[in-house]
Amino acid sequence: MTTTLHTAALDDLIGDIVLHHRPRHESGTVPRNIPFLAEVPFDRFGIAVATTSGDVFSSGDADVPFSIQSISKVFTLAMALQGTRTGRLWSRVLREPSGTSFNSLVQLEAEQGIPRNPFINAGALVVTDHLMEETPDAAARLLRFLTEQAGNQEGDGGRQGPVIDEAAAASELASSSRNLALAHFLKDFGNLTQAAGAVVENYVRQCSIMMSCVQLAKAGLFLANDGQGTAGTVLSRNEAKRVGSIMLTCGMYDAAGEFAYRVGLPGKSGVGGGILAIVPGHCAICVWSPRLDAKGNSLAGTAALADLSDRTGWSVF
Amino acid sequence: MTTTLHTAALDDLIGDIVLHHRPRHESGTVPRNIPFLAEVPFDRFGIAVATTSGDVFSSGDADVPFSIQSISKVFTLAMALQGTRTGRLWSRVLREPSGTSFNSLVQLEAEQGIPRNPFINAGALVVTDHLMEETPDAAARLLRFLTEQAGNQEGDGGRQGPVIDEAAAASELASSSRNLALAHFLKDFGNLTQAAGAVVENYVRQCSIMMSCVQLAKAGLFLANDGQGTAGTVLSRNEAKRVGSIMLTCGMYDAAGEFAYRVGLPGKSGVGGGILAIVPGHCAICVWSPRLDAKGNSLAGTAALADLSDRTGWSVF
Amino acid sequence: MTTTLHTAALDDLIGDIVLHHRPRHESGTVPRNIPFLAEVPFDRFGIAVATTSGDVFSSGDADVPFSIQSISKVFTLAMALQGTRTGRLWSRVLREPSGTSFNSLVQLEAEQGIPRNPFINAGALVVTDHLMEETPDAAARLLRFLTEQAGNQEGDGGRQGPVIDEAAAASELASSSRNLALAHFLKDFGNLTQAAGAVVENYVRQCSIMMSCVQLAKAGLFLANDGQGTAGTVLSRNEAKRVGSIMLTCGMYDAAGEFAYRVGLPGKSGVGGGILAIVPGHCAICVWSPRLDAKGNSLAGTAALADLSDRTGWSVF
Amino acid sequence: MTTTLHTAALDDLIGDIVLHHRPRHESGTVPRNIPFLAEVPFDRFGIAVATTSGDVFSSGDADVPFSIQSISKVFTLAMALQGTRTGRLWSRVLREPSGTSFNSLVQLEAEQGIPRNPFINAGALVVTDHLMEETPDAAARLLRFLTEQAGNQEGDGGRQGPVIDEAAAASELASSSRNLALAHFLKDFGNLTQAAGAVVENYVRQCSIMMSCVQLAKAGLFLANDGQGTAGTVLSRNEAKRVGSIMLTCGMYDAAGEFAYRVGLPGKSGVGGGILAIVPGHCAICVWSPRLDAKGNSLAGTAALADLSDRTGWSVF
Repeated sequence: MTTTLHTAALDDLIGDIVLHHRPRHESGTVPRNIPFLAEVPFDRFGIAVATTSGDVFSSGDADVPFSIQSISKVFTLAMALQGTRTGRLWSRVLREPSGTSFNSLVQLEAEQGIPRNPFINAGALVVTDHLMEETPDAAARLLRFLTEQAGNQEGDGGRQGPVIDEAAAASELASSSRNLALAHFLKDFGNLTQAAGAVVENYVRQCSIMMSCVQLAKAGLFLANDGQGTAGTVLSRNEAKRVGSIMLTCGMYDAAGEFAYRVGLPGKSGVGGGILAIVPGHCAICVWSPRLDAKGNSLAGTAALADLSDRTGWSVF
Repeated sequence: MTTTLHTAALDDLIGDIVLHHRPRHESGTVPRNIPFLAEVPFDRFGIAVATTSGDVFSSGDADVPFSIQSISKVFTLAMALQGTRTGRLWSRVLREPSGTSFNSLVQLEAEQGIPRNPFINAGALVVTDHLMEETPDAAARLLRFLTEQAGNQEGDGGRQGPVIDEAAAASELASSSRNLALAHFLKDFGNLTQAAGAVVENYVRQCSIMMSCVQLAKAGLFLANDGQGTAGTVLSRNEAKRVGSIMLTCGMYDAAGEFAYRVGLPGKSGVGGGILAIVPGHCAICVWSPRLDAKGNSLAGTAALADLSDRTGWSVF
Repeated sequence: MTTTLHTAALDDLIGDIVLHHRPRHESGTVPRNIPFLAEVPFDRFGIAVATTSGDVFSSGDADVPFSIQSISKVFTLAMALQGTRTGRLWSRVLREPSGTSFNSLVQLEAEQGIPRNPFINAGALVVTDHLMEETPDAAARLLRFLTEQAGNQEGDGGRQGPVIDEAAAASELASSSRNLALAHFLKDFGNLTQAAGAVVENYVRQCSIMMSCVQLAKAGLFLANDGQGTAGTVLSRNEAKRVGSIMLTCGMYDAAGEFAYRVGLPGKSGVGGGILAIVPGHCAICVWSPRLDAKGNSLAGTAALADLSDRTGWSVF
Repeated sequence: MTTTLHTAALDDLIGDIVLHHRPRHESGTVPRNIPFLAEVPFDRFGIAVATTSGDVFSSGDADVPFSIQSISKVFTLAMALQGTRTGRLWSRVLREPSGTSFNSLVQLEAEQGIPRNPFINAGALVVTDHLMEETPDAAARLLRFLTEQAGNQEGDGGRQGPVIDEAAAASELASSSRNLALAHFLKDFGNLTQAAGAVVENYVRQCSIMMSCVQLAKAGLFLANDGQGTAGTVLSRNEAKRVGSIMLTCGMYDAAGEFAYRVGLPGKSGVGGGILAIVPGHCAICVWSPRLDAKGNSLAGTAALADLSDRTGWSVF
């Protein structure tokens, strides 16, 4: 299945990945409803690999913070699975691929308010609502978790750890009509306990966390390492594997199957251009490049991961 | 990720799986439209494991032939991928989970006649049509392929190899209105080159092939073994992995996500009660028990695979 | 097509309709999300007929105010058509039957935020938004219009004219998650200019207007009288006819076809149990009985109108 | 509601309608799956009016036979309603507008094989199946009915009555994949008693009947005349009105609401370019012009009927 590479080889390889995949011309799109994401220069490209042996390799813009957007959903799910009420969580959200757009209301209506999985927007709103039942400021709790796992960047000479970009959150919130529609719809079906507006606000603040590739790879390491994070146990071995399974079947919006086919690794993307991918037992990888394909996944990031998988043999299949 | 078990341990383990999972009382359902499947006694249960080191372990009713039904879709896809026209194939069928029932026409209408993946009925009809363009009797070609890979059963004293149950096929064909609707619908969208009736007939005959757990595990070994089958190379390493990825995201009808979550292995089920699962690099597993859950997957078979995964640590995540 | 009845005959007839159709046992349902409507005794039944010759006939609980709910949509549409911006209105909402539930989001997603007609909730929200562009308190304007047309009740000894039940509106607003979802969804598609919350609030207040059968029959008379209301011209002859056509094709939620089949008259129902029906050239009829059928239309009211249509020959067909 | 015109005035009027509405340039479309309809010159335009007083007025190409296509559905429904098994018919098909395309399978799946109304293809297949239970060659029975009602054309010097264009039917049958899909789908839901292929063949032959505007207006007169046809009673007064109600709510494919709004009359169109419209108590109108709008209704025909309605005041509202 997977192959261990020598340290030097991996360092060379990801340098080469940056050389080959950093965009030279603008292509792809930016999200229509999040204006500030359009301002990020198209040629940003970073990659970081955090291994289970404790090493971190990085290249390109791997220390530049970007908006993690939906990658946050992996961590809020993990936080929810740390609790004792997971039975209740799984009664409120399924674990199946959706087959429709990430923010569609159609399936939600057909299935009476039970979202298909925790990684479509409706499902993530339910997870946020679930967390808010115990911790009203779930976004702040998420930030603490990520800071704990990601730490300060190596040799960054004072550069910041993860932070919520509150101005970006406010801007995104002002054009969150679709998410508000989803939240009120969930409420109508009795699948939201907190106020719809509050849940959307908290959700948007989670999405607005700024992190670098290096930080995200470190924060996601527990998914490759039997639940053991850089700062202690995050989940049991079984729960960590199960988050991986949801990433593989549901992590790339409506292109999960294509990503599994081309890359063969559990992954979760965000419309900020980041993708977190997991090589079970070996490493967590984060790539970032801001322009997106038609499904909302990073164009250059997806291509880079496919190339990396081909060249390393990293694949779960 | 995965753990190699000693031979003796594996032999004991699958014996224990049979003891614990063979149904004692009837529960679950039989397919409404395939009468002869209802006649199989509810307490049949078999399991076989074919390893990449060449061993075959089996227990319970592992030598009893059953109707492979949709498990055939894995092998027709593999046969299609052996050809030189794979580009054309992938222009006619996607590789995404469907999010809807395996025989739904809705998504097909929304997506203008391009099936979501090769494992829903519409997609399998397209694969069959693709094969029939070169080999009009694609079912006979499939039978030859399976016979070559599965061989004669060890020590079976004259028991048969794979065979098409033509009487069962004729019976199933008589109640194939839904598949005929799908085929004519595909034809209407220009995504079927052969006559709709002929494609459905050939498809039903593929589904009506009778094989045992032992035979299916051997026939599926190439998927665990970098494309190397019991009778030579079936697919390249990459193509074999990619079939695995489609099994994981699309192989269990509308319960692919749940199966990935509970079992963590690429699998493909059939309404005859069989499930083929793959442990990449290690083995192919076939379990069989004829009563089904609400999604059409073997009740006892799914539970047995989840148990086996827990006890062996076999999981791709 | 229609038959003019003598005054005495009509008086007797509607008395007889009350005798035969006033519910003796509770059957039917009340709206799940509007608690105060459940408190209205099940055996209320009223009917009023306002003729183009200026007479008003009534029987039963014809002077008891009830919540007009969606019948308000006829009048807000008429008010919108009085304006000069009807071209813009019809670019924002279609005039086709929906074929789905009155509060479904599915069709809205498929058709990119353009509601099927002004009588489903999404369409009525757009009409309210359109009115609010000129008159922020559109509900108050509607109340003035209805008061002007309905006047004070004949011989009611001080009983009130139309009034907004603000307590009921507040109660209904507290469980308006579905309408809020629709409004935010419209906003997401750019088909709402005012704030989503404000539009829903105004819409709910329109629905919470209390009127009697007599008042509603008088207020709706212009639809039977070439646009001439009890208090002057409301619409042109053509516009009045066109409102009637929308009532016939879209006025009874998802049972418009069945109502046209059984009754043969343009009608608009509300979940408060009222139905306004139009006999073009002759009269406007309002029946009221609070318990509803599965589609949300008054059980006894629909039966009474079918009976009345059979006995008078009133039908547009 | 409606206005009686003097004979001379009506004669002049329909002559003027032809002058103004006969297409001068080609616009609109022809059905993609019925090649022979594309061969009819774009500038054909005919109109005929058959009155309840026994007169027939006509102008333009009113004596040229054309393919009646879906207008046949009005007459097969009427024939089905003549029988004694109408209760069974209405248990197999609803009477509601569909809100979707005339040949959609989606709604049929959602509603478990019960078509929305008799005028969408799925519903017409059920009506044909219902007729075939008693009269295997339902198309021949339809032809006899139409010939009886339409008679020989006035002063046509030997021109033919209604006839099935068997060559056209065969051609259309060869590209009837969608209708075959619908029929097999109905069969799968148990809502078809005859063989799917036979029902589609009979249905296509009904659609392939050739008639002129004059013949169709005469054949449809019973719908304007309380059920009394040119050759005796066709339906009871009530049943005739009810067919009219279904025409108004469901007769113009997915543009029924728009047609009711613009024209205000019950109508049924066919992709051959014909439209049959009813002025209850006064007359049946048939217009024909072969090029279609996006919804499949005759472009010039619809415009002509809207104009005629405006100029005569003919409207049921």
